Amino acid sequence: MNPQHPLPTLAVEPGFFAGRTLAELQDAMHRGTLSAEALVRHSAAAIERLNPLLNAFVHVDIDAALAAARALDAQRAQGRVRGPLHGIPVAIKDNVDTADMPTTMGAAHFLGHRPAADAECVALLRAAGAIVIGKTLTHEFAYGPTGDRSVQGAARNPWRTTQITGGSSAGSAAAVASGMVPVALGTDTGGSVRVPSALCGLVGFKPTHGRVSAQGLFPLSPSIEDAGVLAQNVADAQVFMQALSGGGIGASAGAGSAAPRMMWVPNAPFAIDDPAVTACVRAAAVRFLGGADDAGLLDGAEVTRHARALQGALGAIQRSEAYAVHAERVEDEPEKFDPEVLERLRASRPVQGWEYVRAIDTRARLRAVFAQLFERVDVLALPTVAITAPALQQRSVAGPGSAGVRETLLGLTNPWNLLGLPAIALPAGFVDGMPVSLQLVAAEGSDARLLALAAQHWQRPA
Amino acid sequence: MNPQHPLPTLAVEPGFFAGRTLAELQDAMHRGTLSAEALVRHSAAAIERLNPLLNAFVHVDIDAALAAARALDAQRAQGRVRGPLHGIPVAIKDNVDTADMPTTMGAAHFLGHRPAADAECVALLRAAGAIVIGKTLTHEFAYGPTGDRSVQGAARNPWRTTQITGGSSAGSAAAVASGMVPVALGTDTGGSVRVPSALCGLVGFKPTHGRVSAQGLFPLSPSIEDAGVLAQNVADAQVFMQALSGGGIGASAGAGSAAPRMMWVPNAPFAIDDPAVTACVRAAAVRFLGGADDAGLLDGAEVTRHARALQGALGAIQRSEAYAVHAERVEDEPEKFDPEVLERLRASRPVQGWEYVRAIDTRARLRAVFAQLFERVDVLALPTVAITAPALQQRSVAGPGSAGVRETLLGLTNPWNLLGLPAIALPAGFVDGMPVSLQLVAAEGSDARLLALAAQHWQRPA
Repeated sequence: MNPQHPLPTLAVEPGFFAGRTLAELQDAMHRGTLSAEALVRHSAAAIERLNPLLNAFVHVDIDAALAAARALDAQRAQGRVRGPLHGIPVAIKDNVDTADMPTTMGAAHFLGHRPAADAECVALLRAAGAIVIGKTLTHEFAYGPTGDRSVQGAARNPWRTTQITGGSSAGSAAAVASGMVPVALGTDTGGSVRVPSALCGLVGFKPTHGRVSAQGLFPLSPSIEDAGVLAQNVADAQVFMQALSGGGIGASAGAGSAAPRMMWVPNAPFAIDDPAVTACVRAAAVRFLGGADDAGLLDGAEVTRHARALQGALGAIQRSEAYAVHAERVEDEPEKFDPEVLERLRASRPVQGWEYVRAIDTRARLRAVFAQLFERVDVLALPTVAITAPALQQRSVAGPGSAGVRETLLGLTNPWNLLGLPAIALPAGFVDGMPVSLQLVAAEGSDARLLALAAQHWQRPA
Repeated sequence: MNPQHPLPTLAVEPGFFAGRTLAELQDAMHRGTLSAEALVRHSAAAIERLNPLLNAFVHVDIDAALAAARALDAQRAQGRVRGPLHGIPVAIKDNVDTADMPTTMGAAHFLGHRPAADAECVALLRAAGAIVIGKTLTHEFAYGPTGDRSVQGAARNPWRTTQITGGSSAGSAAAVASGMVPVALGTDTGGSVRVPSALCGLVGFKPTHGRVSAQGLFPLSPSIEDAGVLAQNVADAQVFMQALSGGGIGASAGAGSAAPRMMWVPNAPFAIDDPAVTACVRAAAVRFLGGADDAGLLDGAEVTRHARALQGALGAIQRSEAYAVHAERVEDEPEKFDPEVLERLRASRPVQGWEYVRAIDTRARLRAVFAQLFERVDVLALPTVAITAPALQQRSVAGPGSAGVRETLLGLTNPWNLLGLPAIALPAGFVDGMPVSLQLVAAEGSDARLLALAAQHWQRPA
C-alpha cells in the first residue's frame, strides 16, 4: 500500500494531548506557559466531550487530580521537579489497583470495589509525578482482545467509532488515541497492550516478563502477563516505562547507529494474512531499516516451525491460570459474568494438569530456542495484528481463510507472551483509513535496547 | 514399647557388610587387610546367596566391578585415595541411568534399555571412588511405595521375607539391610528413600529439593523428587550425600552440643496411628534429646492444621507431573504396565490444569509458613511410617481406622516432599520384631546440620 495523502484523520475532534509529546509538555510547564493544573483541566475537558462517544474512562476524579496537580505545581515552583512525568495526567486500566478510585476489572463482581492501596506500579508512577486522572475500560477481567465486553459496555475506536479499539486495554487506547491523556497504563497477557495500540494507531510496549511489578494487578494468567504502556510516540513510552519499572528499564540504552538485524516473520500459521495489511507493515519495516527495498530483511520462516508448540503451550498455560483465578466465581456467581467471558472461562476449565506441566516444559524449551535465535538477530518483525479494527461485536473475519476475530487479533502477539519477550507495536500506516502496526520483538531483557532502536529508527507514517 | 532383649534379628544370614561402617572398611583397606577387590568379592558372594531370597538386585556386573576395584586398588597403592568412598561397592536404584548397565525403571517398556551415559549423580559417585556393583529393584516407574510391583517382581524384607521392603527404592533397602552392599542410592518423590529405610531398619536421607542433580534420573514428579541415600548409619549417609551432591551438602557442619528444639508432629490427620509404633518412635525422640521424659518435645499440633492443604497440593502436583511423563505410554502401550501402576496413572490424568496452578500457589504459601516455623524449631519429629512392614501385596491396613496401605506408608513422608525439605529416617526400635523409624525434618537447605544433629544425638536401638 502506498501512503495515502492526506493521511486519514480521527473520526472525532481530538483532545488537547493529541500530537503533543511529554517533552513538549514539560518544556511548556518549565517555561510557565502550562501548568499541571492546566493539563488536568485540558484532560477533563476532553474526557467530558469525548468519553460519551468513546467510553474510554469508567471512572474519573477531576477534583482529586486538580488537588494533585496544584501540589505538583507548587513543588515545581520551588524548583523540585520529579522528572519527565511531573504533572502529567495519565490513565490507568481498571484492572490495576488504585487506592483513591474504584477498580472493577470491568466486571459486575467488582462494581464499587475499592482497593486498600495502589498497585506498586501505580505508586511508582505517582512517585514520579504522574497524576492519575481516571480508570479506563478493560475487557471484562481482561479476558478478551476486543474491548467490547464489560460491565461498562464497549470502548469505541477514535478512528471509526463503529469499530473496536481492541483490548483488553481498550479504554487506555481510546483515551490516548483521542488525546484525552498523553499516555496510559495497560496490561498485556496475550496482546492486551499491543493489540489496542495497533488498532488505534499508538505505540504500545510490553516489557520482558517480570520487569514491572505485578503486585496489585488483577491476575489473568500471571506467568505470562505484564503491565505496559500505550503512548503516542516512542520517547513517551520510554519515559513511562522507566517510571513504571522503578528504573529497571533504563531509558537511555544506546542502540548504536547501525540498522538492526531484522528477521521478518510470516503471519502463517500464527494468523491469517491480509495482503494489504502485511504489505503496509512490511514497507514500514523496510523504512525502519532505512533501505530502499526489503533485501535487508532476514527470512523468518524458521520461526513458523514453532508456531504450533508456541500456541499450544500458551493456550494450556493461559487457560489453566485464568480458571484458577476464577473457579469460585464461575461456580458461585456465573450470572454476573458477560456471557462470552463466562463461556471462555468454562472452556478453560478442562485443560488437564499434565497438559499444563507439558506446556511449562515446552515453554522452557522454546525460550532456549529463541535465546539462541536472538544471538543472530536483533529483532523479529511482523504485523502486530493481521487485520484492521473489526466492527463492535464482530466475531469472525470475512473473506478467504475466514477465522475467528479473537484468534486473529491475538495470533501474532501472544507467542511473545509465552516466551516473556519484550515487544513493541509501532504505527506503520493505514489501510482503508484505519491504522496498522509493525511489531518488533527482541531478546529477553533487551527492553531498553528495543525502545532505543525504535526511538532511533521508527518514523511516523507520512 | 520397651526395647526387646535380645534385639530381633534378620530373617536371613546377613552378608559381609552388615554392621560394618565405611570408616572401618576404609581403615582396613588403608591397613591392607582388605582391598576394593575383596569388597567386591564379598558383595558378589552376598548377592549370589541372598538375592534369590530378597530380589534386591535386578542386574549385577561383577566382572566390571572387579575391574574397577583393581584400578582403584592400584591407585591406592600409589597413594592416591579419592576419599571415603574409594573402593566401596554401592548399589544404584534402577531408575537412575548407568552407562554400563541396563536401566529399566522396573518396567517392561524399558527392558534392555541401556542409557548412553551415567546420571550426573552416578558419575559423581564413581568419581569419588565408588564401585557400582549393580542396579536395584524399583517399584515400577517408582510409582508406588510398596516395592512389590515391577517387571522384575517384588523385593522382600530381610527382617521377614513375607513382608514388603517398602518402596519405591525397594531393592536398595533390601541390599543394604541384608549386608550385600554397605550403602545404596535411592530416589524419593513421596517417601521412596525413607519408607523402605524405615521398614528395613536403615538410615535414609532425602535432601533439600534440588541439592542433588536430577539429570539422568527417570522422572516421576520432578518438582518434588530427589536422589538420596540408604545406609546403615548416619556417618555413612553423610559421606554418601557429600559425594552425591558434589560437595553441595557438606559433611562437617557442626551441630553444636545442645539438644535441638524438637517439635513432635501427631500422625493424625496425615496418617493412621498405631499406638505401639508411635510410642516406640516417641521414646526414640526422647532419647535423641537426651531427656528422661517427653517434656522437651514441643507440641506440633499447629502442623496438622496444614495437613489437608499439604496433601491436596502434593496430590495435584504429583499426579499431573507423573501423567505428563507417561501420557503416550499409557495411550500406546498400556498392556506393558503393571495393572496397579496403570490404574494409578490413569487416575492421575483427570487432575485439571487450574488445580495444578492452585497447588503450585499453595506450595509457595506453605513453604513460607514452614520457613517461619523453622525459626522457632530445629526439627520436626514424627514416625517415618505409621506401621511396620505389611505383607507383600497387602493393600489395606486392618484394625480400627482401617486405611489403604499406600496412603498409610506415604502419609507421614510426602508432606516434606511438597515443601522440598530435608528429612532423615532413623532406626527407632522394633515392634513385633519389625523395625520402626523416627523421622526428623529440618529447614530448607539445612541438610548438613540435620545430618550432623543425627550423627551427634541418634543412638542405635539397644
